[in-house]
Amino acid sequence: MEISAGIVKELREKTNAGMMDCKKALQEAGGDMEKAVEILRKKGLSMASKRSGRETKEGVIDSYIHLGNKVGVLIEVNCETDFVARNEVFKTFVRDLMLQIASSSPLCVRREEVPAELIAKEKDIARAQITGKPDNIVEKIVEGKINKYYEQVCLLEQAFVKNPDIKVEELLKAKIAEIGENIQVRRFIRYQLGEEL
Amino acid sequence: MEISAGIVKELREKTNAGMMDCKKALQEAGGDMEKAVEILRKKGLSMASKRSGRETKEGVIDSYIHLGNKVGVLIEVNCETDFVARNEVFKTFVRDLMLQIASSSPLCVRREEVPAELIAKEKDIARAQITGKPDNIVEKIVEGKINKYYEQVCLLEQAFVKNPDIKVEELLKAKIAEIGENIQVRRFIRYQLGEEL
Repeated sequence: MEISAGIVKELREKTNAGMMDCKKALQEAGGDMEKAVEILRKKGLSMASKRSGRETKEGVIDSYIHLGNKVGVLIEVNCETDFVARNEVFKTFVRDLMLQIASSSPLCVRREEVPAELIAKEKDIARAQITGKPDNIVEKIVEGKINKYYEQVCLLEQAFVKNPDIKVEELLKAKIAEIGENIQVRRFIRYQLGEEL
Repeated sequence: MEISAGIVKELREKTNAGMMDCKKALQEAGGDMEKAVEILRKKGLSMASKRSGRETKEGVIDSYIHLGNKVGVLIEVNCETDFVARNEVFKTFVRDLMLQIASSSPLCVRREEVPAELIAKEKDIARAQITGKPDNIVEKIVEGKINKYYEQVCLLEQAFVKNPDIKVEELLKAKIAEIGENIQVRRFIRYQLGEEL
């Protein structure tokens, strides 16, 4: 099997193993990166036991500490070039997102990321609130309530704190148009002092 | 069932529902807080659909951004009083912890938090590296390797970057002695730009 120089380099960066060892491991693994890492580790040739993160995109990691160290936000926002990552418009957008997260406590970026159990629980609660309506009407109302729930817990669907007439997603789209480069809110986390985990 | 004023207050803070509604819900739920929240929500009396965090401890949330926004750390460190949370010795300790996390990429605070699958995989790899030894010796060696693994991935077991002669846990104990108040590293997260999730 032909093993490209690029994939050998990637394995070397991941494991700090020698070039020939990396090439052999990749051949043995049929080109499968994860298997090759394990082969090297079994041979004692890899140092990669800590979490290793290959950088695949440009953008920034940024943080915001609120209320005298009682609330904190960490965020990753990606863009296409390092040039944009250093742009003031981009950086200000990232800060606005963190302010949004600190003050409005979303659970995740987009609706696909809301855990299915939470949605199921919300639906149960919504159905229990409705009495004496035909089933098709009940389901319409439940759907409406779930949409409202998404607007509360998904960052991109929340009303923007600095301008509640637009959603955060509209702000994102405006920034993509302004900057002329794709932007993606990849992930965030919000810590509140002493909150239940 | 007797419902204490304290638990009613807690439910009110969680849900913003009225006092009598909270008391009734708690009676119906036999004192179970989570059930009482659901009862209120089914009756449409609660606003608690976002993540709500009751503050149970003092301390700080703090963050550290490294390498021109390519790495970021968010941390919660608890102490007993707000007075200590504002103390310079405590704050410096928190900053040292974040520097440690940024540079040494631990996965979790303590060994109890390492996922069992990771340990199982490490054991498999360790066993595969040993040949021609009796089983009891193999297990001794594997145990030694797992201990080394913990020293790599657990924050408290890592060698302190500013003084590799001591472990982070020893630094923690020294700070507890110096400040005279219990300190707990509750949680942290480390983001690296573009890393695989």
